[in-house]
Amino acid sequence: MVNSHDTICALATPNGLGAIAIIRLSGPNSKRIVEQCFSKSLKNVDSHTCHFGNIKSVQNELIDEVLVTVFDHGKSFTGEESVEISCHASPFIQKKILETLLDCGARLAEPGEFTMRAFSNGKMDLSQAEAVADLIASQSRNAHNIALKQLKGGFSNELKDLREKLIHFASLVELELDFAEEDVEFADRKELNQLVSDVLLYINRLAKSFELGNAIKNGVPVAIVGAPNTGKSTLLNQLLGEDRAIVSDIAGTTRDVIEEELTIDGIEFRLIDTAGIRDNAETIEAMGIERSKAKIVQASIVLCMADNSIPNNTAEVLDWAREIRTLHPEKKVVIVINKYDISQKTIEISDFKQVYISAKQGTGIEELKKILVDTIIADFDLANETIVSNVRHYNALLKTRTDLEKAKFALETNVTGDFVALDLRQAMYHLGTITGQISEDDLLANIFAKFCIGK
Amino acid sequence: MVNSHDTICALATPNGLGAIAIIRLSGPNSKRIVEQCFSKSLKNVDSHTCHFGNIKSVQNELIDEVLVTVFDHGKSFTGEESVEISCHASPFIQKKILETLLDCGARLAEPGEFTMRAFSNGKMDLSQAEAVADLIASQSRNAHNIALKQLKGGFSNELKDLREKLIHFASLVELELDFAEEDVEFADRKELNQLVSDVLLYINRLAKSFELGNAIKNGVPVAIVGAPNTGKSTLLNQLLGEDRAIVSDIAGTTRDVIEEELTIDGIEFRLIDTAGIRDNAETIEAMGIERSKAKIVQASIVLCMADNSIPNNTAEVLDWAREIRTLHPEKKVVIVINKYDISQKTIEISDFKQVYISAKQGTGIEELKKILVDTIIADFDLANETIVSNVRHYNALLKTRTDLEKAKFALETNVTGDFVALDLRQAMYHLGTITGQISEDDLLANIFAKFCIGK
Repeated sequence: MVNSHDTICALATPNGLGAIAIIRLSGPNSKRIVEQCFSKSLKNVDSHTCHFGNIKSVQNELIDEVLVTVFDHGKSFTGEESVEISCHASPFIQKKILETLLDCGARLAEPGEFTMRAFSNGKMDLSQAEAVADLIASQSRNAHNIALKQLKGGFSNELKDLREKLIHFASLVELELDFAEEDVEFADRKELNQLVSDVLLYINRLAKSFELGNAIKNGVPVAIVGAPNTGKSTLLNQLLGEDRAIVSDIAGTTRDVIEEELTIDGIEFRLIDTAGIRDNAETIEAMGIERSKAKIVQASIVLCMADNSIPNNTAEVLDWAREIRTLHPEKKVVIVINKYDISQKTIEISDFKQVYISAKQGTGIEELKKILVDTIIADFDLANETIVSNVRHYNALLKTRTDLEKAKFALETNVTGDFVALDLRQAMYHLGTITGQISEDDLLANIFAKFCIGK
Repeated sequence: MVNSHDTICALATPNGLGAIAIIRLSGPNSKRIVEQCFSKSLKNVDSHTCHFGNIKSVQNELIDEVLVTVFDHGKSFTGEESVEISCHASPFIQKKILETLLDCGARLAEPGEFTMRAFSNGKMDLSQAEAVADLIASQSRNAHNIALKQLKGGFSNELKDLREKLIHFASLVELELDFAEEDVEFADRKELNQLVSDVLLYINRLAKSFELGNAIKNGVPVAIVGAPNTGKSTLLNQLLGEDRAIVSDIAGTTRDVIEEELTIDGIEFRLIDTAGIRDNAETIEAMGIERSKAKIVQASIVLCMADNSIPNNTAEVLDWAREIRTLHPEKKVVIVINKYDISQKTIEISDFKQVYISAKQGTGIEELKKILVDTIIADFDLANETIVSNVRHYNALLKTRTDLEKAKFALETNVTGDFVALDLRQAMYHLGTITGQISEDDLLANIFAKFCIGK
């Protein structure tokens, strides 16, 4: 599916100015192409060694002093012969070197083509290849951990185990079909039923983890809503206070201007539509309800803020929260009762998580943060459990589940083995698409097109 | 002046997302520090070899799969033991690895500290170190060539030759001083005078080249001025037409929105205040004179456009051009006579460069481009002559010149050798500051502070 007779090249480091940039090549002629413009021979050099010299254009103009690192066939990221040219990070120089490599017979890589070659050459499976992109994009500890675990093949191994169980199961059923006329039962139906139930349970758990995985990967949108002067702006500052410096440390990350990001326990929360809060717009009565509604639609967690110093305000907010839950049952609603420093009266709330805070004095903020994290993590064990974060994997799991449920139903209703076998084959097919054991060119093209060039 | 007992680390590649990022360390403990967080021992590895493994935090969390390249003391860019860690280009991972290196005993590098160490360890002189920054920032072929030549030590060698001539000269004069009472003349005055004149001639040429060098390094600001509907916008499109695609190819370069860049023969021209032209603002009478005046002040080259189809317009523009020259004698003014396709009448112009064009039909554009380039290059031989592009070098050359002129005057007026010797010592001092043979901590700090961190 990949034409590995040709040699590809691309800038591998981010665009921009810096001390060093890397241009890499992969393919059977990598060394020969670089030798045409490099001042030293690469014929007898060992894999994983680097060599200082000059790069010249085909017109013999000196372009830069570079360090060339050589990777032999079978020993590189892609599995192919590969060369990395480490040059000065100037857009002009990068462009000149790429032009020269094209002149010498390389071609520019398509987006994701290096990783696609690694996949094609069996250096990684599809879910590992996808993890490369996730790893680069991850902005929080947990997103990073999930991607890294996936890259390291943790998820793939679990899927392999699952698939082996299904194969074992299917082989028993198919064996029965071979002896159909003799009416034997190699597979104990009860045992089979138990097996498929176990696998289903596991797949359900994986599918359920997607909500968490997706939240961790893309950040959790949080809305703070409440009447004007409830203290939303003060709470926002309390939440962001310590984190601000850390966020600005990570230079180069682009952020949506109307969102503030906050990382708690390695999970990224995106406080949406904070522009309105920041602009002191909360003092403007006009923007209350309508704007809040729009925010709620975007949010996964809604913090409904009450002012405890105003009689009945908490009860009103509670009614409002119930209304939100009726309209959007999938949203997680938390009641935040502010100004506890002014009024210590409490109210019995049994149907929502709640927290008493003083945004002004900073009390209760840690408890609120803990609620935010718990709401997302639910009962998952982030450190040890596999969390699905890729929507393609999630959809494949759902399809596998449907197939398995059909198989289970067939077993329970004593449908003939043919149908059970068919359902099982479908389930294995869908599970196989995750790691790429089953893959189609269209699917691959679609996955790798989302990569940057150079990956 | 640099404390090389410690080991520094920094991100060396540009910020942002990409396939690969490099974090480098330099200093005596580079290998030992990396070994604390890397999965392999670096004790017995050869210089210039790279090693695949895992990086873990001091809390033993896996951070990334990386490639570690080792450079032995004396064999690296800085001249010190050095390690490069090639990781996934994710801001999160870069931050984690840097944090881990700090935990293991490295410290974050100051801006330019890697290059400063290379200078301190005698791997390059000061003008070569400055060339590193120029090389990275260069956006055109000639800017790149000047920086590369400087990095390769071409300029330094010429200055060394000059300085040797002065030392020879000074030693003769000082020898005379030793024998002052005997009234001997070791140095033939006529010969000495000839020598100092030769050196002065050369320094004058270098100083004169700064105008060109500076133009090449920073781009040449060009203003197109003329009455509304003269065809400025059409000319702009003609000039930019072919070049546009090339400019946008160089991703990541930031550009001033109100300027368009155009590279001709490897020289970058910046067409200033093109926003006005692009917005069709030229049809608005109001913005004529005042806006043009502001543009002229910013420009090095002023293209005064005339409409040949309007009687007397060229003569009017010529008067205007003379007025500009009176007010700004340093500006280079070119008369561009447009709409030659409509009217072929010509006018005798002896005091300005001129070109007849049809912006609409694209005729005369190549001639105009040639005039732009010739105006800047003057009589310099870009391929073979040394061009000074650094303002610090230029100022040092001017000071050297002043000293030499004093020495020459002293020789010619038979002032005692003491004064000649003093002037010569001053001249050698100023020349020495360029390459850093003479350097002060303040000067060094100032030069390297302009570098990015990681260089």
